Amino acid sequence: MQLTIAAANALAVRTLTRHRISERHARLVAEHLVDAAMCGHEFSSMARLLAIVEALQKRPPPAEIRVVHETANSALIDGGDNIGYAVSITAIDKAIEICGKSGVAIVGANNTWFSGRLAYYVERAARQGYVAMHTTNTTALVAPFGSIDRVMGTNPFAIAFPCEDDDPVIIDIGTSATSWGDVVLSAAKREAIPAGVAVDAGGRPTVDPNEALAGAFLPWGGRRGSGLSMVSQLLGILAGSPVVVDGIGNYGLFFMVMDPALLMPDGQFKSRVSEFRATVHATRPADGVSGVRIPGEGSLLKRRQAQAAGVIEVDDRVYSQILELSA
Amino acid sequence: MQLTIAAANALAVRTLTRHRISERHARLVAEHLVDAAMCGHEFSSMARLLAIVEALQKRPPPAEIRVVHETANSALIDGGDNIGYAVSITAIDKAIEICGKSGVAIVGANNTWFSGRLAYYVERAARQGYVAMHTTNTTALVAPFGSIDRVMGTNPFAIAFPCEDDDPVIIDIGTSATSWGDVVLSAAKREAIPAGVAVDAGGRPTVDPNEALAGAFLPWGGRRGSGLSMVSQLLGILAGSPVVVDGIGNYGLFFMVMDPALLMPDGQFKSRVSEFRATVHATRPADGVSGVRIPGEGSLLKRRQAQAAGVIEVDDRVYSQILELSA
Repeated sequence: MQLTIAAANALAVRTLTRHRISERHARLVAEHLVDAAMCGHEFSSMARLLAIVEALQKRPPPAEIRVVHETANSALIDGGDNIGYAVSITAIDKAIEICGKSGVAIVGANNTWFSGRLAYYVERAARQGYVAMHTTNTTALVAPFGSIDRVMGTNPFAIAFPCEDDDPVIIDIGTSATSWGDVVLSAAKREAIPAGVAVDAGGRPTVDPNEALAGAFLPWGGRRGSGLSMVSQLLGILAGSPVVVDGIGNYGLFFMVMDPALLMPDGQFKSRVSEFRATVHATRPADGVSGVRIPGEGSLLKRRQAQAAGVIEVDDRVYSQILELSA
Repeated sequence: MQLTIAAANALAVRTLTRHRISERHARLVAEHLVDAAMCGHEFSSMARLLAIVEALQKRPPPAEIRVVHETANSALIDGGDNIGYAVSITAIDKAIEICGKSGVAIVGANNTWFSGRLAYYVERAARQGYVAMHTTNTTALVAPFGSIDRVMGTNPFAIAFPCEDDDPVIIDIGTSATSWGDVVLSAAKREAIPAGVAVDAGGRPTVDPNEALAGAFLPWGGRRGSGLSMVSQLLGILAGSPVVVDGIGNYGLFFMVMDPALLMPDGQFKSRVSEFRATVHATRPADGVSGVRIPGEGSLLKRRQAQAAGVIEVDDRVYSQILELSA
């Protein structure tokens, strides 16, 4: 079914406040979820409310989000077990503020959980003219390359570059062969997961989503992807997460925001990014490819179309489940 | 054949100074090449002298390496068309110096070329207790995902984390499906390259190394790997490289060095990294795997063995070619 953007926002806010999230935080989460829907990321949008509410029901009330250590170039944030969507906005805004003064900011946040699409936060900084990098470690689900035991999260990595007269260039990738959302969705639909993305608790390859959830996901990209996952894991640990994250909580969020003027004082970086984008667009596509795209462009195009239409799509069953939770 | 470490060093210095590299720079390059040999990276070691000399023969004499812009957190370095091995040492040492004062450093370097293994530079900073990230763009050889035209370099990405009582954890990955070195080596040996790593000038898949060199390499890891390659490309552009790098030269080197004390003021990060390493080591290996390793561990183990033995291996034919060039 279709919902207007305003109705989807109101429904998300109502559902979240009904489950003890503050009005202010609920608005931040709702904006993120509706934006994900506009960008075409169905599992990161309204459907995510179901997992959020389930997690909320098991948690004590959160404390305040607090900056616990700050320098001229950095800040460390205790998320107070608040939802990551709110903690990440606090963190990226703090990073933007510090970067505005000193040119570069390193910000870590911990004691928090689900934070949605990393692209959302780095885009926020890139729209201020900054280059922003962000990673997080998450619940241990992924085995290192060569291993069958889950130690690392699905550990996404994102970076955004500001662009002249256009959307930023946004790279946002997961470092696991499959995502928690996809596997949970397959379990709910009683469908198999693709071969080669997970092992069961005994380390045997499996296509059963429930066995995968009891076992381990494999890293994306073999040895190299596993190395990248370790980068996110170690930066998450630096931000204050435990070495291995059990359950939903205690994620470590790392942000680096820098002013390109540090290295390009003439202010030309944004137009160089545009030039790079145009160069990639002008390359010859491979057979069967209609045009060569920059990562993130598809999402941003969908967002513009959804904004113009003023509506988002929500799965009928997901909608009725949300209605129940919001009542 | 085997060479003592001292003899290999002396041979490299003699060969380089014979081709107009200063004694000081030649020593830096030689140390790097011999270290690569000890770490088991044959193509990055003594064999690299052949490609370096070939590139040197085509270049005018370099200018000085100069810091052209500096802030409390950053430096921009004009490499003066000096070899990247020397420029990168200047850059990482500048980053370490800045980081020692302000806790974080962003350093870019341009107008330079071959710089060897990125692991070498990030390890240098990690041994001072810092987290260091480094990427570079290089000669355009790689087509973006979905494209058949070379726009990006083989664009490596490296990061190192300091570790308590042990070697740093070092992740150093290329973002192309094959490396320039491997393809050139296959061409020299008149061997085919693996399927699926390159296309010819018309965009057709090829296993002919010479056709690949005339066409384009494919990115590693499909869409995600292509995105990572773009990250290195854009950070290289930020460091001052052209949008597309033609030929050998004008690479853009990006360095970020930070003190983990920014986010972990109690100084515990190094022991957390050790804990993570021990956790990964303790996981169950997959069938057929003897033990689960952290990236970079194999290289560091080989280095210790070579240091103890005091010798490195050099291919006989490579050795005689170097001898000719050093005469």
